[in-house]
Amino acid sequence: MSTKDNPLRDPRDKRLPRVAGPCVLVLFGVTGDLSRKKLLPAIYDLANRGLLPPGFALVGFARRDWDNQDFRQIAYESVKQHARTPFREDVWRHLSEGMHFVPGEFGDPGAFDALAMAVKELDTTRGTGGNYAFYLSIPPKFFPQVVEQLQRSGLAEHDRTSWRRVVIEKPFGHDLTSAVELNDTVHRVFPEESIFRIDHYLGKETVQNILALRFANTMFEPIWNRSYVDHVQITMAEDIGIGGRAGYYDGIGAARDVIQNHLLQLLALTAMEEPTSFSAEAVRAEKSKILSSVRLPDELGLATARGQYSAGWQGGVKVRGYLEEEGIPPDSRTETYAAIKMEIDNRRWAGVPFYLRTGKRLSRRVTEVAMIFQQAPHLPFSQTDTEELGENALVMRVQPDEGITVRFGSKVPGTSMEIRDVNMDFAYGESFTESSPEAYERLLLDVLIGDPPLFPRQTEVELSWKILDPVTEYWASKPKVEQYKSGGYGPAGADELMARDGRAWRRI
Amino acid sequence: MSTKDNPLRDPRDKRLPRVAGPCVLVLFGVTGDLSRKKLLPAIYDLANRGLLPPGFALVGFARRDWDNQDFRQIAYESVKQHARTPFREDVWRHLSEGMHFVPGEFGDPGAFDALAMAVKELDTTRGTGGNYAFYLSIPPKFFPQVVEQLQRSGLAEHDRTSWRRVVIEKPFGHDLTSAVELNDTVHRVFPEESIFRIDHYLGKETVQNILALRFANTMFEPIWNRSYVDHVQITMAEDIGIGGRAGYYDGIGAARDVIQNHLLQLLALTAMEEPTSFSAEAVRAEKSKILSSVRLPDELGLATARGQYSAGWQGGVKVRGYLEEEGIPPDSRTETYAAIKMEIDNRRWAGVPFYLRTGKRLSRRVTEVAMIFQQAPHLPFSQTDTEELGENALVMRVQPDEGITVRFGSKVPGTSMEIRDVNMDFAYGESFTESSPEAYERLLLDVLIGDPPLFPRQTEVELSWKILDPVTEYWASKPKVEQYKSGGYGPAGADELMARDGRAWRRI
Repeated sequence: MSTKDNPLRDPRDKRLPRVAGPCVLVLFGVTGDLSRKKLLPAIYDLANRGLLPPGFALVGFARRDWDNQDFRQIAYESVKQHARTPFREDVWRHLSEGMHFVPGEFGDPGAFDALAMAVKELDTTRGTGGNYAFYLSIPPKFFPQVVEQLQRSGLAEHDRTSWRRVVIEKPFGHDLTSAVELNDTVHRVFPEESIFRIDHYLGKETVQNILALRFANTMFEPIWNRSYVDHVQITMAEDIGIGGRAGYYDGIGAARDVIQNHLLQLLALTAMEEPTSFSAEAVRAEKSKILSSVRLPDELGLATARGQYSAGWQGGVKVRGYLEEEGIPPDSRTETYAAIKMEIDNRRWAGVPFYLRTGKRLSRRVTEVAMIFQQAPHLPFSQTDTEELGENALVMRVQPDEGITVRFGSKVPGTSMEIRDVNMDFAYGESFTESSPEAYERLLLDVLIGDPPLFPRQTEVELSWKILDPVTEYWASKPKVEQYKSGGYGPAGADELMARDGRAWRRI
Repeated sequence: MSTKDNPLRDPRDKRLPRVAGPCVLVLFGVTGDLSRKKLLPAIYDLANRGLLPPGFALVGFARRDWDNQDFRQIAYESVKQHARTPFREDVWRHLSEGMHFVPGEFGDPGAFDALAMAVKELDTTRGTGGNYAFYLSIPPKFFPQVVEQLQRSGLAEHDRTSWRRVVIEKPFGHDLTSAVELNDTVHRVFPEESIFRIDHYLGKETVQNILALRFANTMFEPIWNRSYVDHVQITMAEDIGIGGRAGYYDGIGAARDVIQNHLLQLLALTAMEEPTSFSAEAVRAEKSKILSSVRLPDELGLATARGQYSAGWQGGVKVRGYLEEEGIPPDSRTETYAAIKMEIDNRRWAGVPFYLRTGKRLSRRVTEVAMIFQQAPHLPFSQTDTEELGENALVMRVQPDEGITVRFGSKVPGTSMEIRDVNMDFAYGESFTESSPEAYERLLLDVLIGDPPLFPRQTEVELSWKILDPVTEYWASKPKVEQYKSGGYGPAGADELMARDGRAWRRI
């Protein structure tokens, strides 16, 4: 379908949309949760928005005894259940005709030869132009096998008119050493510019809007520095526990699972200088500069806090503590809450602490970047009139209540000059009629188009581990992990961390 | 009633309210519209909030054959109809017992002797402490008589323990010469510090909040200058015509009626430096500095615009043009719309134009100060992505929809980096449960307490006329007054004024 007569597009919109060119997307691990809940629906939504070309094909690869029809049926159910755009028969028919399944083990040469034949056939029958993207939605331990087979079967090779891309998901290792190893594995076959590392947070509208807010406007950048900012709080709080992820989570913990990727990326986007353009190279260069400038305080015991959730009540339901969760050893020291204070050693941010925290089983789910400003240098009001005046804040709400809040002091109605904090709000949902694409939609389209600014490169991954490794090593040397009540605000140690600096966390 | 057990106060509020001390308020022109609709209800509301002392009395003076009972009945009706706080029998009873009426002409010595006797008696019977405030809610042509009689009858004299204050309403003259004369008249009897000139705009919450916004916060002041502001628009638009005010309005016009006082005061509050405190002296000093620095462009024909409303439709009703209004000469050249471009010659504002406009019979009623910022110096986005991006703006909405709006660019949800203007809003009504006192409540209380920061002093009045006189003189020299359609956006000349500078008015 042409994008011109697409009912999901605003007919007043004269701009050409970004549409992918002909290609095959090969999905490894297509039977997994991520595929069913996110990837397959996102592919359908892209097709429905007219952003996939007629010459597009999707090949599933997994250890299942499926044929094409089985795969299409599974995909159909997943689209019906999880897609964000309305179901349209003609879009689905065209998309599903291009869907193929190749069964096989990750180490089986025969299966990869079959895969190679299948995609080559699609080049002819579907017009996919010899362009292949490989999405490795599989545990990293299988990367070496898959990458080797892609090379051996000739699938990784391309000529001057076609391309190969490989998509990998976090975790990108569990420390600097393992990240370098993992990367070497993929680099053996694919050059860095063909590797797309997915941090789905970077696909979120609200995260991308940090850059729009800063660099498309005049008002914010002048106060975005140490002269006006007191400190920054970056929070990702979850109300859920580890669910069925015990096997993955234990031994990894909150800092590696969230701070190393999502929160450090949010920090980089918040703190970075203006890039020369929004090209991948320019944005990544600025993010890397920030990550290179991050410094942990000398006394890690005073600048970090961690905890494990204990039993408690959440949403009216009694919940177990982490150590009682199925599959978790009763002496586990894995943290489910982590808070780290960081400094950025550059001219803009010297002396402004960035406090990062994340945790499970907290009172509610919220991700936000809060910039807390210094108090006005002088208040020409009398003391009692400003008792209820706090600090100015600019809060970028990433989820779930997407938007921006500015907190500032305003006169309380009445016959005296009393000042109190009030909020000024911008909500995405109220301001735009456009439906937000799911983060995976955006990121998949970027992969197919070959537009990489929202994908961290290896340098960033390594810099992030370099920041985090001393903390996890320090924690490993200390046996005690604090407990915190499920449904609450996290461990007391995290509050003490802030109190030592004369500050307090924003209420979750 | 003590303020402690006042049901209108928040019991958690531990601060002492500002309460007036014992005094008599003498209202000249008590039969007029302002008294009935604003002053009498405001006095009741103050009493109801517990802000008037037990030793308070109100004396009405007018050319009417009323006794105390008539006056109380008139006041009762006006309170019942216009007061903002609930009617409470005990409050009314105590207040009305202190209400007295003295009939008389403004030039009649006998009437003023009776007035003097009445207030002296109240000092005894009501405990008003010998403190008198005289509110001249009368046309300025009667000022000389009244002031002379106040002196002759001894009412203007006070000892070291008591005070006299006189309140006057705009117009404070119709040009610099007449303003100086008017002032000399009042100064013959009252010193400058006893004169309270009422500009009711200054009593509005939203106007006072301009100072709170600027000086209680960190975020706004850094961008509040020529480095970031492109220009400022100060608007007071009315949807009504002149109504029954032909006799007053014709020959005065929009510039004298609104710009000289309300809009120049808004300009002063927006542009002024931080005062050393909120004392009257400090605030007035800063406002005067701004008014002294205002400069009109050399070519008044290019920097000003005026118009008269012609017949048209408004709110579904056909309305007459100004020249067809009852009491207006068909060849009147009085403007009902005025727009003036001004510059402020100081370090903060050099090169930033302030555009002031006011008009009657426009599409809707709105008063606002809009600070329009420069475009970001560089946009790292591609051209097409920012087509719908305008300039950042901070709008202080004075009335009717009280609040603050920030307009800024935000990413449009979707797979490209498209930026569009959105609004972030703060609304008084939603943020405060406190009911806003009416502007007159605040200002009357300030008179009785003797707290003058919100009253312009003579210097400011004279500086404002000095700014305006060249414009009205220039207009007087040009016979043609443009017509504009009732219910529209004002004369074409005003749009051309902005267009010459490559700018446009905000939509009314």
